[in-house]
Amino acid sequence: MNVIPPALARLIADFGRLPGVGRKTASRLAMHLLRRPAVEAQALAKSLTELHQLITMCSTCCAFSEADPCEICCNPDREQGLVCVVEEPADLVAIEKTASFKGKYHILHGVLSPADGIGPGELKIDRLLERIRRDQVNEVLIATSSTVPGEATAAYLIRHLQENSKVRITRLACGIPMGMDIKYADELTLSRAIASRQQQ
Amino acid sequence: MNVIPPALARLIADFGRLPGVGRKTASRLAMHLLRRPAVEAQALAKSLTELHQLITMCSTCCAFSEADPCEICCNPDREQGLVCVVEEPADLVAIEKTASFKGKYHILHGVLSPADGIGPGELKIDRLLERIRRDQVNEVLIATSSTVPGEATAAYLIRHLQENSKVRITRLACGIPMGMDIKYADELTLSRAIASRQQQ
Repeated sequence: MNVIPPALARLIADFGRLPGVGRKTASRLAMHLLRRPAVEAQALAKSLTELHQLITMCSTCCAFSEADPCEICCNPDREQGLVCVVEEPADLVAIEKTASFKGKYHILHGVLSPADGIGPGELKIDRLLERIRRDQVNEVLIATSSTVPGEATAAYLIRHLQENSKVRITRLACGIPMGMDIKYADELTLSRAIASRQQQ
Repeated sequence: MNVIPPALARLIADFGRLPGVGRKTASRLAMHLLRRPAVEAQALAKSLTELHQLITMCSTCCAFSEADPCEICCNPDREQGLVCVVEEPADLVAIEKTASFKGKYHILHGVLSPADGIGPGELKIDRLLERIRRDQVNEVLIATSSTVPGEATAAYLIRHLQENSKVRITRLACGIPMGMDIKYADELTLSRAIASRQQQ
């Protein structure tokens, strides 16, 4: 006997596939939307449908954007020769909030993690090298998180860039507490770290 | 400068409207779906769109169902004269799992909560009375939660049904939960269990 209507069961299952959403939370979210006016579920459905339709990846910096190249890559006021390498889009947002960085970005979309099968080939490192040559980049600021995988990724990047280019390589200054994720750092700490970046 | 693409910002805002989902969680869910293949976001969108299209409220018992009357109300094997009153659909699911109840259900869709503006008129009590008269219901088993609002709702229902019908009114037994050590039972539960002790 089916006590949960199939359409509700499907929504619960779909919510339950999201990270950090267990079965109880999924049921609660689905029941909430079932009780609220239909427009609320429809609005969420529309946003979900449009997500992949409207958002693309910038072919220069690998940021998610509705335009290619993205707004930052197109912006003539931003320093073309300075590129900040971050792990993920949320890190870019955190750095932009400080208003301390006037260069461009490059998003790796991950960190080296051999246990999860993520090696250098899975990150956007080839595109970064291409870009360094094509756009006369003269400084790469590495802004990976000061976590173990972030540090390992930074170490790999430094060696790789030194071997394959003549670009100046800098890193965020110490000031970021070890073990803290870039996107959770407070703005002042992050500003300080950008201002006192160190040559490697 | 817009560093979060508008389509992504809309999805984050929509997720953030769900109960218990803060801004960080909403961002995490949206970024997860953006990284995963488009079919995953589309599947969730489809389930959301179908939610209100396919699910209706059973006009007899007020359960959510794809058919009206619902499967339980249609089932000739279930005792027509015994109706279990629950607060919400999840309570029906919990009772069905026990396979100990062979009657029908009535869902109130809430509890009395004057602070939130929920009085008897907001619950499905009129429909219950109608149903008692129409379907020759002879027993109403009140299965509201043993919380303060659940108890208040039960007390109101008992008085209201006694005044307006001759139906037999029963309640779930209160006492020590199975598997619980007496010394860890709270005082109120233990008092109740002593007061309603059963002859063996």
